[in-house]
Amino acid sequence: MSIESAPTRPAVPFTKGHGTQNDFVLVPDLDGARGLTDAQVRFLADRRGGIGGDGVIRVVPTRCAEESEVRALADEAEWFMDYRNADGSRAEMCGNGTRVFVAYLLREGLASGPEAAIATRAGVKVARVSEGENGEPSYAVDLGPWRVTHADTVGAQGYDTLVALPGLEPLPGMSLDLGNPHVVIALPDTADLMDLDLTTAPVLNPAPESGANVELVQPLGPGHLQMRVHERGVGETRSCGTGAAAAALALMTWSGAPHDNEVWRVDVPGGTLHVRALPGQRVELAGPAVLVADGVVETPRD
Amino acid sequence: MSIESAPTRPAVPFTKGHGTQNDFVLVPDLDGARGLTDAQVRFLADRRGGIGGDGVIRVVPTRCAEESEVRALADEAEWFMDYRNADGSRAEMCGNGTRVFVAYLLREGLASGPEAAIATRAGVKVARVSEGENGEPSYAVDLGPWRVTHADTVGAQGYDTLVALPGLEPLPGMSLDLGNPHVVIALPDTADLMDLDLTTAPVLNPAPESGANVELVQPLGPGHLQMRVHERGVGETRSCGTGAAAAALALMTWSGAPHDNEVWRVDVPGGTLHVRALPGQRVELAGPAVLVADGVVETPRD
Repeated sequence: MSIESAPTRPAVPFTKGHGTQNDFVLVPDLDGARGLTDAQVRFLADRRGGIGGDGVIRVVPTRCAEESEVRALADEAEWFMDYRNADGSRAEMCGNGTRVFVAYLLREGLASGPEAAIATRAGVKVARVSEGENGEPSYAVDLGPWRVTHADTVGAQGYDTLVALPGLEPLPGMSLDLGNPHVVIALPDTADLMDLDLTTAPVLNPAPESGANVELVQPLGPGHLQMRVHERGVGETRSCGTGAAAAALALMTWSGAPHDNEVWRVDVPGGTLHVRALPGQRVELAGPAVLVADGVVETPRD
Repeated sequence: MSIESAPTRPAVPFTKGHGTQNDFVLVPDLDGARGLTDAQVRFLADRRGGIGGDGVIRVVPTRCAEESEVRALADEAEWFMDYRNADGSRAEMCGNGTRVFVAYLLREGLASGPEAAIATRAGVKVARVSEGENGEPSYAVDLGPWRVTHADTVGAQGYDTLVALPGLEPLPGMSLDLGNPHVVIALPDTADLMDLDLTTAPVLNPAPESGANVELVQPLGPGHLQMRVHERGVGETRSCGTGAAAAALALMTWSGAPHDNEVWRVDVPGGTLHVRALPGQRVELAGPAVLVADGVVETPRD
């Protein structure tokens, strides 16, 4: 045989990026002709056999989206964030992913800023870029409405769920809905957040029908908290955008109610986010986005 | 502020590849001028904040190596595999890595094959490329000498170590030295290899001073076995080159002694390898190498 390498495989351009270490493989499909099969998404997200990421984001004109509900957004937002989970399935939205998506549009000259509207399966999201605390760009995205799930039935402390973690007495938690379900637990001062065992899912009582993301939080000072998160169906992650928002909103709620435009700094293992309570029971998440690498990947033949 | 992206960071070209899903970031340094700091290696190997790999391999002329022992190999091998662990430290050798390294040299025209000599910190290794069973190139590398560690003291069955795994009675294992330490355990037919709990390190008795890689093996037929591996200091991995060789050599030894050029097929979770017992108590490992992607990565400023 020849010692040449194997026959050429379909080559796909990609960019790898992350937001507070929630990482993504972006694939430009600027004329909407490429598409991405579920198998290609799984390959791209595969950390050992492919490139590796928590998810895959196709950058495609909104008018070329498969879904008619998305195509209907084309007048409001030129570009559609086709977010795919690592298993190939479609997701509505990803808070950390939107920042990376907008950073990509700006770098490529596909949007001009300082505000950029993008289409998602959860509607149009508007991102605003500004200078962050460290001089790097910060991207703020309106995540939409939120609510305390059991606001009518919880006790004076706002707790509705008991959460069991290895080695700790059950702790009270508050359920919030940000489009996806969260339970936020304020740890006692005596517990060490970094020592918690999150290798198994915290046990919730009562157990939400579809599970929940669980945030363990500790206030560090006025308007400043640190947290760790166990994502449902995934395990502990280094960042969860809606989880950071839920954690800040829970602490604001425990202090009475969020003030309009009240901002909390949230330290997650993967970095720092800022959460703003918007008027009208909405919430904004701001944070960094890093475009790490650009390249071409040879996808397997089907 | 401007909405441009952050100031340009040092850009480094890279190739991502894997051998049976043991994966690497290759960085060409063809004139030996680039080098790689430990911090750059850690960044490149970081699966979320960087590119991601089990290790990083710098492709550098042997005459430009830092180590004088390596530079002394320049007449025998033009290119040096500067293998770095994910933490930045230097490693002597990596069986799966050599195949990916040679695949890269051939693709780039830096070697011509079908045999290519490469310099490593464990001396010169010669790789031979041929057509594998599936029509893709297979790369065979002489891993060097091996021995049964306690050949003088083990019982008739060749066992010298008891290995405890969750949910199983302690099993007898045999220690082998392939430059690094291994303990190979043949599972009883009644145990299901895929059901084993390898989330914690198997407990060895007596415990080797520096630990050991542990291979759990099951024969599937003549000259054919499947295995899983727990690498010391790492955890379960999808492939371990010297581990596959140790597993095949242990089964050959249990059947009497390896015949010269006896070949076993070894199925690991990441793919298929072939192990050949070479004359003179040496062993050869053959398997695939895949170059997945090429690109440019922006490394952080120091």
